Amino acid sequence: MPEDSADKAVEDAGVFPPITPPDDEVRERAVARHAQLTKPAGSLGRLEELGTWIAACQGACPPKPFERARVVVFAGDHGIAAEGVSAYPSEVTAQMVANFLSGGAAVNVLAAAAGATVRVADIAVAGETAPMVSKYKVRNGSGLIDREDALTAEETVAALRAGRDIADEEIDGGADILVAGDMGIGNTTPSAVLIAALTGTEPVAVVGRGTGIDDQGWIRKTAAIRDALRRARKVGADPVGLLRTAGGADIAAIAGFLAQAAARRTPVVLDGVVVGAAAMVAEEMAPGSREWWVAGHRSVEPAHTIVLDHLDLKPILDFGMRLGEGSGALTALPVLTAATRILAEMATFADAGVTTTASSDAPAPPPTPKPQTIPEPPPAPTYTVAPPLDL
Amino acid sequence: MPEDSADKAVEDAGVFPPITPPDDEVRERAVARHAQLTKPAGSLGRLEELGTWIAACQGACPPKPFERARVVVFAGDHGIAAEGVSAYPSEVTAQMVANFLSGGAAVNVLAAAAGATVRVADIAVAGETAPMVSKYKVRNGSGLIDREDALTAEETVAALRAGRDIADEEIDGGADILVAGDMGIGNTTPSAVLIAALTGTEPVAVVGRGTGIDDQGWIRKTAAIRDALRRARKVGADPVGLLRTAGGADIAAIAGFLAQAAARRTPVVLDGVVVGAAAMVAEEMAPGSREWWVAGHRSVEPAHTIVLDHLDLKPILDFGMRLGEGSGALTALPVLTAATRILAEMATFADAGVTTTASSDAPAPPPTPKPQTIPEPPPAPTYTVAPPLDL
Repeated sequence: MPEDSADKAVEDAGVFPPITPPDDEVRERAVARHAQLTKPAGSLGRLEELGTWIAACQGACPPKPFERARVVVFAGDHGIAAEGVSAYPSEVTAQMVANFLSGGAAVNVLAAAAGATVRVADIAVAGETAPMVSKYKVRNGSGLIDREDALTAEETVAALRAGRDIADEEIDGGADILVAGDMGIGNTTPSAVLIAALTGTEPVAVVGRGTGIDDQGWIRKTAAIRDALRRARKVGADPVGLLRTAGGADIAAIAGFLAQAAARRTPVVLDGVVVGAAAMVAEEMAPGSREWWVAGHRSVEPAHTIVLDHLDLKPILDFGMRLGEGSGALTALPVLTAATRILAEMATFADAGVTTTASSDAPAPPPTPKPQTIPEPPPAPTYTVAPPLDL
Repeated sequence: MPEDSADKAVEDAGVFPPITPPDDEVRERAVARHAQLTKPAGSLGRLEELGTWIAACQGACPPKPFERARVVVFAGDHGIAAEGVSAYPSEVTAQMVANFLSGGAAVNVLAAAAGATVRVADIAVAGETAPMVSKYKVRNGSGLIDREDALTAEETVAALRAGRDIADEEIDGGADILVAGDMGIGNTTPSAVLIAALTGTEPVAVVGRGTGIDDQGWIRKTAAIRDALRRARKVGADPVGLLRTAGGADIAAIAGFLAQAAARRTPVVLDGVVVGAAAMVAEEMAPGSREWWVAGHRSVEPAHTIVLDHLDLKPILDFGMRLGEGSGALTALPVLTAATRILAEMATFADAGVTTTASSDAPAPPPTPKPQTIPEPPPAPTYTVAPPLDL
């Protein structure tokens, strides 16, 4: 493809329709419904916020309990693994893909526990995988980003398209809540580079121990991030350029998947640092996408906290996890399911014949006989999402 | 009953066999098993800790996924509600018991979502409830604790016995994970008094807004806590005396239930401030019980944080919840279920044919061509529960 058309294709693959936010009118109805359910207003705290968010995403109050929760694990290798930035060799990526397919990995167990099903997509594994997962394969491992681009322009297009197409397939297939997971030895290195590039952060503030590297590995990884970041900075804040230069095919596919889910008004539970890096790129390509995402957890990778701050997302769990595969998101998914079911299934005060009159409207309590030496009360808590129940 | 026998009965009801901790040898086997599962050692963070705890509680590695999760909601009214310490009138307690029985409350929805079933026990509701829940009823509402004892000595015995018997019934019926919940208008007031009495805390540091009282209610509640605490301090640290003086029949039953669960080596997910107050009393009656409990969440009630610190428990969720009924514990229960299933169901490296050789044992990476200006790495993270995987 001549260079000009290639540039145009790259641009197109990263262009999304304007993202419109979840339905605010439905969100207000959900808040009002929460105030009618048989519990003190606001007493379920963040569970109420999550339920109203799902209602707003669905455009329906009460929301429908999830019928098809789906996790897609995007697998890909990274040339940078050859620099000794991981505790494991690249061959583990293909082995883990096989493990996903035979049902023995954490993602399989956590998905089953959360009522979700698993899809695996080989986007750039450095080796052969089963034909059922390699339909969208772009290449065998992405480039050695400290000295070359991760991808060609054409490969970047193909990877973004893969993620978008997979999101479309899943949503057309009935998925009503999505999770993106990652698998790829070395993938926290390009993730750290993307996060550093998009936030102007220094290498030592984004580097983490990934799968569990030792001190020598940490030094090698920090050097690799430094060198890749030097290359990445040449493309500025261009999200597609960053994926091409310093990302990788798997990360590009996740970014396309996340932005497309937002374009298709489908909520997503985000996982850790790799999905977080892709989410930051997706938000650059399709601003407002983040309104369609919730953070499943806070990873121990330091760069992940930078992602959460940057996207203004509050994690459901803070569990010291660092596995990837969608594991943190899937551990949190049952909490989101519960939040949705609360709004869908609880009785209202009227249904249950429960008194809603606050006792401060009842006859005044007898005056306390002793002199009061009680200090002023603190301000009322601000977590209340519904008006106080003084009906 | 003459006073001496009554005193003896009170003492007996609060006497438990020595509590032995979960099985340390099995815990070590669970840690070792985690290191063999197809993931970097320690990469599931707290999920690994929770799974090893369940294995140790069961005395079996891998642990058995839960077959019968059970929540018992202990309902009771409190005379102190007449002082205007709650946003709701006492009649709501009986109405909510009826709501539990018809399946419309938060506890019903959250239990269903978590795969648990619900039992309701009227211990001291101020009104009539269905015969199926009133078998263990001790009285109609506990005493006005700012001016009289919550219970007589005989009632304290009966309430403690009720909780112990209910725990026995549930465990004999096959329950392998228990949750205690509370329902009772005014019940955060005696809870705050018990927590203050056992930790030497001032009233203003334990008072919270409960169901959502206004500033005038806050002042009344703080005064009530102050006066009840003055009465409670006369019994010192005697846990059974505290339940009698400043607790209530429902709280005494929960304390008996929690200590008996520990005596029967059955794990419990704790809920918020009311269950937390009962847990502190239970730990005084049966030291070591806390090793059998996990904190489901951190409530917004300030006294609950004092409980968590005192019992050295780390909550699974921090969600701004304050409903009671076991709602926080049930929201967290699926996380514990997932932790158990991970240890029970994931493949090992050997099962899956995944390489365990760390790449630091592979040929050394090429030297980085540029001079290193990377600072020293930070210390390795301390959350790792398994030895680093350098097999």
